[in-house]
Amino acid sequence: MPSEISPLLTDLYQINMMQAYLDRGATDVAAFELFARSLPARRGFLLAAGLQQALDYLENLRVTADEIAWLKRSGRFKQNLLDYLGDFRFTGDVHAMAEGTPFFASEPILRVTAPLPQAQFVESRLINILHFQVLVASKAARMRLAAPDKVLVDFGLRRAHGAEAGLLAARASYLAGFAGTATVLAGETFGIPLYGTMAHSFIETFDDETVAFETFARARPDNLVLLLDTYDTEAAARKVVALAPRLKAAGIAIQGVRLDSGDLIALSKSVRGILDAGGLRDVTILVSGGLDEDSLLAFARAGAPIDGIGIGTAMTTSQDVPAIDCVYKLQDYAGLPRRKRSENKATWPGRKQVWRRYGGDGRMAADILARDSPSPPAPASGAGLDGSGEPLLQLVMRGGKRTQPSETLDTIRSRVRRELERLPEPLRRLEAGTTYPVEVADELKALAAAVDARMQQTP
Amino acid sequence: MPSEISPLLTDLYQINMMQAYLDRGATDVAAFELFARSLPARRGFLLAAGLQQALDYLENLRVTADEIAWLKRSGRFKQNLLDYLGDFRFTGDVHAMAEGTPFFASEPILRVTAPLPQAQFVESRLINILHFQVLVASKAARMRLAAPDKVLVDFGLRRAHGAEAGLLAARASYLAGFAGTATVLAGETFGIPLYGTMAHSFIETFDDETVAFETFARARPDNLVLLLDTYDTEAAARKVVALAPRLKAAGIAIQGVRLDSGDLIALSKSVRGILDAGGLRDVTILVSGGLDEDSLLAFARAGAPIDGIGIGTAMTTSQDVPAIDCVYKLQDYAGLPRRKRSENKATWPGRKQVWRRYGGDGRMAADILARDSPSPPAPASGAGLDGSGEPLLQLVMRGGKRTQPSETLDTIRSRVRRELERLPEPLRRLEAGTTYPVEVADELKALAAAVDARMQQTP
Repeated sequence: MPSEISPLLTDLYQINMMQAYLDRGATDVAAFELFARSLPARRGFLLAAGLQQALDYLENLRVTADEIAWLKRSGRFKQNLLDYLGDFRFTGDVHAMAEGTPFFASEPILRVTAPLPQAQFVESRLINILHFQVLVASKAARMRLAAPDKVLVDFGLRRAHGAEAGLLAARASYLAGFAGTATVLAGETFGIPLYGTMAHSFIETFDDETVAFETFARARPDNLVLLLDTYDTEAAARKVVALAPRLKAAGIAIQGVRLDSGDLIALSKSVRGILDAGGLRDVTILVSGGLDEDSLLAFARAGAPIDGIGIGTAMTTSQDVPAIDCVYKLQDYAGLPRRKRSENKATWPGRKQVWRRYGGDGRMAADILARDSPSPPAPASGAGLDGSGEPLLQLVMRGGKRTQPSETLDTIRSRVRRELERLPEPLRRLEAGTTYPVEVADELKALAAAVDARMQQTP
Repeated sequence: MPSEISPLLTDLYQINMMQAYLDRGATDVAAFELFARSLPARRGFLLAAGLQQALDYLENLRVTADEIAWLKRSGRFKQNLLDYLGDFRFTGDVHAMAEGTPFFASEPILRVTAPLPQAQFVESRLINILHFQVLVASKAARMRLAAPDKVLVDFGLRRAHGAEAGLLAARASYLAGFAGTATVLAGETFGIPLYGTMAHSFIETFDDETVAFETFARARPDNLVLLLDTYDTEAAARKVVALAPRLKAAGIAIQGVRLDSGDLIALSKSVRGILDAGGLRDVTILVSGGLDEDSLLAFARAGAPIDGIGIGTAMTTSQDVPAIDCVYKLQDYAGLPRRKRSENKATWPGRKQVWRRYGGDGRMAADILARDSPSPPAPASGAGLDGSGEPLLQLVMRGGKRTQPSETLDTIRSRVRRELERLPEPLRRLEAGTTYPVEVADELKALAAAVDARMQQTP
């Protein structure tokens, strides 16, 4: 879906600025970096996500003749801009962190290096794509950490913010460790495993709940999950026990039951008891209904016999934190580093690299934010760390073309699993007990001072 | 964009249930209603929105041959279902509240009456479409109420949750009273007025801020707004004053300045002083940067000389409340009313109408939730209200076709203006001082009891 989106899904000021750039011949190379200015509440780390859709967008960015005609009719733009847009191709380079990499405030996860009008044009949609998947992957990772042994499934399409959010939330949560999604289109588009049970409405169309269960079982015998809470959860569990032999005789095994309301901890225990007493020890218990990572932790602490959890709204909207202060800022233009100094929004100038160091236990120890360079920076003052480390930003697009095939979701999922294990233990908790150290290299501080000094010299 | 979305953007269980319905011949008429179970925190009312996109979806719902082939390859479904989907057309009726109508907990804003498999199939996407626009229109209305005399503009595309959210947030905020949007595609798609200024990056590509201003002014002389806070807001205001005569000589008028960081109340006052002292009394002041309805109220209370406000993330994500407990529930099937009785999620059975009564001052006084009927219900016990009122749900689609042309956004905007004036005064405040009375008609309570009694008779 993302590549079908019109390039006019951008802010008007981007096109206004392009007009001014073209009029002035300001088409030298610019570098912009995308980063979060700060970590939101209750987030000890964020996960990079959405790179594949960002690169799809850049590779396929074309302005159609109809769109040019509309822009022309608007009367806002001159012919030089319309010609430029009609021929538009993104020809720049992109450096990025791999999807699934944890990152922190001020660390760029993507850099665009391209002629200024190109790099400007893509700002709004690049943030729109990357911000949302980072948001959801980071939220889903918290759920994964709170329930490492449970089957977590995305049930969130209906209250996701529109179509693309529903689809991409399935992707972002899957790469963060969910087992699958209920969203059929995410199965078709990304090959994500699909999960589905039944709704209360199905049960309600029958006057007899047992007949409803049996009808559904015979129509959908595979991966059969029956929904228990339409009228009385425990009574429904007893009906399932009574029905099971008849279904078994027909070759149909009940795989699970789902509880969607009430005190899920208490009900899961009583339903487990009813099922076990009825010989249905292999029938799993799934729960759903307004759940978040705190619910998952509460289930674990209470020892609730819950096997799987459908998670919807809290994940697809990142309900406690529905936005991150994620920006895309000019770092250099025409060979000179640049920065803004706006109150509380100042940026570090120049193209940057993030170097990550690990401790003896294999866990992440500290990052250094430095000027982009093939070798690690000199030790930061007072950091007490040596100069080694792993550079996180890698070239992924050159001259508008990907430098390598897209990663599979399996590859990204494996990275997330490994990276979550490498997080310092306090960051793996729902309330991060610490702030991960990100040092700013001395050379970067010196560069900022030099840029400020250069700007002071102008009137 | 919504009509281009694949019908596979739905939950797997919808298709599973359709398979079971078809196998059993359960294709009688069902009625489902869409409503919010409760009002979220800090919301005294919600605004109906998104009906046009919902009807577009229903009218254009087709499953392509490629999609049928994919479903077949999945091995999950039988040929009877694949044939049914291949021929799928929505042939049902829809009753709905007009867009821009305030509504409250438990009040249906839309009813689908259609053969059961059809009505089931459309659940996920209908909620997805309507929930989001209700969410954003309701949030934007709060901003409109907090700043009734200001120009409010949607700047929120970049942190909206994906493409469709960015586009539809522009629509939902415009119908709620915003003046326009920065999102170009919303101008093309919906004819919404476009607003755009300039970004910090533009200023930063120049070493001299005044040269940046002048270059932009000459390239984009219409509706010229200059951004002041890249380095030092007050210094930039003085540069604008110095530049204005030279631009005026070139026939260019500065329309406004924008402040995007810092203490916006204090800066708006000092910048107003600098502009006025420099003879630029007609130059307006726009502000932006992480603003919400509370910011707007603070501006008004401080008497800040602010003319317009760009509002982004807080509006497009409905940041304080990014989801509403919005559901779509079976009300009757095959002529019999139905309800679920799940804990805290019980529903009122049967097709319903919402009757709204007004007081002598023309303000909304109370609603009655009643069984659907052409005439108002008998007085509710103890409500102290007579039987008159205005029915809010109207037929908008019959047999899968709209009964009337889509309303223009201007029509909906006029309705919102009128309806916000008719809200009880306490509901117009950011902290609603009261709960609006929604009475449940006695006949509806009697129906719920009758449905429960019927269900008790089954084993």
